[in-house]
Amino acid sequence: MAKETRRPQTNLCTYDEHSIHLRGVDLVDDMIGKMGFTEVFFRQFMNRAPSAAEVTVLDAILVTLMEHGLTPSAISARMIASSAPEALQAAIAAGILGVGSRFVGTIEDSALLLKELVDAPEGFEARAEAVIARYRAERKAVPGFGHHLHRPDDPRSIRLLALADELGLGGKYVTGIRDLSTILDRIAGKHLTINATGAIGALLCEIDVPPSIARGIAVVSRAAGLVAHIREEQEDPACRFIWDMAEHELSAPHKKG
Amino acid sequence: MAKETRRPQTNLCTYDEHSIHLRGVDLVDDMIGKMGFTEVFFRQFMNRAPSAAEVTVLDAILVTLMEHGLTPSAISARMIASSAPEALQAAIAAGILGVGSRFVGTIEDSALLLKELVDAPEGFEARAEAVIARYRAERKAVPGFGHHLHRPDDPRSIRLLALADELGLGGKYVTGIRDLSTILDRIAGKHLTINATGAIGALLCEIDVPPSIARGIAVVSRAAGLVAHIREEQEDPACRFIWDMAEHELSAPHKKG
Amino acid sequence: MAKETRRPQTNLCTYDEHSIHLRGVDLVDDMIGKMGFTEVFFRQFMNRAPSAAEVTVLDAILVTLMEHGLTPSAISARMIASSAPEALQAAIAAGILGVGSRFVGTIEDSALLLKELVDAPEGFEARAEAVIARYRAERKAVPGFGHHLHRPDDPRSIRLLALADELGLGGKYVTGIRDLSTILDRIAGKHLTINATGAIGALLCEIDVPPSIARGIAVVSRAAGLVAHIREEQEDPACRFIWDMAEHELSAPHKKG
Amino acid sequence: MAKETRRPQTNLCTYDEHSIHLRGVDLVDDMIGKMGFTEVFFRQFMNRAPSAAEVTVLDAILVTLMEHGLTPSAISARMIASSAPEALQAAIAAGILGVGSRFVGTIEDSALLLKELVDAPEGFEARAEAVIARYRAERKAVPGFGHHLHRPDDPRSIRLLALADELGLGGKYVTGIRDLSTILDRIAGKHLTINATGAIGALLCEIDVPPSIARGIAVVSRAAGLVAHIREEQEDPACRFIWDMAEHELSAPHKKG
Repeated sequence: MAKETRRPQTNLCTYDEHSIHLRGVDLVDDMIGKMGFTEVFFRQFMNRAPSAAEVTVLDAILVTLMEHGLTPSAISARMIASSAPEALQAAIAAGILGVGSRFVGTIEDSALLLKELVDAPEGFEARAEAVIARYRAERKAVPGFGHHLHRPDDPRSIRLLALADELGLGGKYVTGIRDLSTILDRIAGKHLTINATGAIGALLCEIDVPPSIARGIAVVSRAAGLVAHIREEQEDPACRFIWDMAEHELSAPHKKG
Repeated sequence: MAKETRRPQTNLCTYDEHSIHLRGVDLVDDMIGKMGFTEVFFRQFMNRAPSAAEVTVLDAILVTLMEHGLTPSAISARMIASSAPEALQAAIAAGILGVGSRFVGTIEDSALLLKELVDAPEGFEARAEAVIARYRAERKAVPGFGHHLHRPDDPRSIRLLALADELGLGGKYVTGIRDLSTILDRIAGKHLTINATGAIGALLCEIDVPPSIARGIAVVSRAAGLVAHIREEQEDPACRFIWDMAEHELSAPHKKG
Repeated sequence: MAKETRRPQTNLCTYDEHSIHLRGVDLVDDMIGKMGFTEVFFRQFMNRAPSAAEVTVLDAILVTLMEHGLTPSAISARMIASSAPEALQAAIAAGILGVGSRFVGTIEDSALLLKELVDAPEGFEARAEAVIARYRAERKAVPGFGHHLHRPDDPRSIRLLALADELGLGGKYVTGIRDLSTILDRIAGKHLTINATGAIGALLCEIDVPPSIARGIAVVSRAAGLVAHIREEQEDPACRFIWDMAEHELSAPHKKG
Repeated sequence: MAKETRRPQTNLCTYDEHSIHLRGVDLVDDMIGKMGFTEVFFRQFMNRAPSAAEVTVLDAILVTLMEHGLTPSAISARMIASSAPEALQAAIAAGILGVGSRFVGTIEDSALLLKELVDAPEGFEARAEAVIARYRAERKAVPGFGHHLHRPDDPRSIRLLALADELGLGGKYVTGIRDLSTILDRIAGKHLTINATGAIGALLCEIDVPPSIARGIAVVSRAAGLVAHIREEQEDPACRFIWDMAEHELSAPHKKG
């Protein structure tokens, strides 16, 4: 059957009647009650044990992205929680589907850009200038820069980069985003915010998280934030209010023919 | 506009240009780098600070539910990760949609049952016997009991309940599920497994998590587990293998007319 | 492998290099350009060819449920379309997740109730009175009755039931919902709307659609409606307006500490 | 409130107690029982009435994409239908999330490419040669060409393009994909299949459907196909079989420590 295909293998979990191992570690004897969520999460997707500093950084990222009020993601989750209260998982799914290219999904673009600049054969600055020129020509924001609210600086970014320094994790990518910021400000002739997704992209590079999986960390964080929104929706529903308001403000008038 | 509706309010997050508060706590000054994910998650959906023991219990629950191999949830996430690799959030959403009534969603049934028994005016045992009789008449499993693999005991459940004892959190619900187990075994005439969702239901009751939101914790944990599945799918894809295998084994023969 | 399991089989589609058959019918020779969407949809989930009248009824149901303005489902889809414009399928998914117990998902409750009444050994009226009494005691709406806007009558329901009569499909379930309406009004002492989901439940019973799959028809119809919402969101975006409005109206004030 | 934002407006649906209009047409008087699903769907997302030929083409596209056996999308839907049988909408959502860049989502790439070639100032052939060279340099398939199973020709594509001719809708895009095929075969030195998504891309261009919404049509069609899969899963479940098979074939061995 399916002879021509090399057989893939999954190594995340093995088990029998009496024990369950995650990446070879005994779940019951060595994880439950002994390791926190963040450490086990890191072990599973990175396939190695994190250092204490890496756990702190991953915690910091997860905490940073969890919540920012009635975002499109939170509104979506509340609409579905109210429509299908028996299926809480559907409400969370509806919310995390918004972790796309516009908002937190930009983390991977920031990480990819930093990797490109750090590895550029022509040197960081030359490549940075070329990349910035390209984004400016397309009238697009450079990934990791700019924020509609948090100006001139995003307090989260400053804190996250400082935390990396404190933990001794601030290497070439943390330096890189600061250098990129300097170059960008010079070319733009004004100061542009290093936004939270930019700083997080740099931190994820420092702890070797592949950009292709970066968005998953944002999704987990947002899923956690949405649980609180759904709880609030259960206790003090906002769905009907938003629905009525949207219909009232945005609907074309009804002309009975 | 919408005058007749009492205006709801959201209290999860407030912000201005310079600061962001979660439940009144400054995200940048007091959370990032100082509180872990699990603590902030608890604060947001419970609207209070957890004790250290409560953080340990929530971590233990999140770690327990994260991963159990190529479950339907993991298969679903991998199918979508392979079909829409540019939308990682969609793959996680497709996976968590499986946290329904059949598998981990049973946590809330277990929690609701324990609350019903503990609060029963006629006493725990009398109500337990009546409830068990009803489930047996309907040929259904009592919520929190039975497992197709982990028999006679689910090692996760034993560990979780012991952890609650160690932490001094083993109160009437942890006692309750053990008592219910004794009563059920007596009536059934054989030993039935206390499964992981049963034990988790008891622990969530001990830390006052409302059953209506219990499923959300399972969803967050599974979302984290799925990130590792998607990473593995990126590196060693299983989608095509499972697809070919399913088609080969399950499709009716093609009769060209 | 998996010896103990009876092997399931899928009969929806078979194919080889040169042809594809759906339920045994040649897709290319006998369906494309010859059968409409509604007929093929019916054939696939019902495993039989529909009559022309049945196609008309299924079309009528699909048309009825497609669109009702900025519903929670539409708002959810627009939020996600705006957040992840590159993943249109995610926006539709986020919208259809709202087809739950509160709104259109009630079709199956209506269908199940009509089947229960029609088959009741004690007679339709006696069972109807008992069921109504139970719903009234629980202060719940009888499935298929009541509407917050369309009063005293829902014009869609009147039209759908009349259409069934015109097509010669108005049998015991269409008669049943009218009889149930009479009994309910008598007991309630006032006229209650037969809502669209009630009428659709009756029509689906007349064409033998199992209640367990009824919600699927609503989902397909809403998915189609959401495509138009997403198109409108692309051309005249409402996401930011709703987001700003919700934040402005519902957020607790920010107190910089 | 939100003063700076131009107020968007939705024109898809207006209503009062007594009537509902879709795009200005009375739903009850002029649509239910008079217009089919496909016509109303077209009206809503295109904001104009279709010709009879356009309805036939849209039906043909919807019928073509509905079903192709146990695809990743169908497997995903079945996994979730089995895990959360009470939330059918979640199973459909989990399936349609797979309409991404790898499979049917390629319709929009095909449509965009045809528009680019038809509008190219340097002429169709010159641009086609340049584009083909670019794809070949990147070792990627030209959008709309190639199929792992249907070779040398995809019978669906041949039928769809012939149908456009029969209906008098075969204009510059249908001619375009045939010309592109000739050029591609010449450059490749062998015949490459025009696949179904390629042909559909051409047809959608002929009826003026914007590429940005093309994927939505595929999603609606697949949603309909998934209803039949979920019905089959209810009657003859395949989830456990696929799950056991995947675990058995792909899991690393368990080593109890």
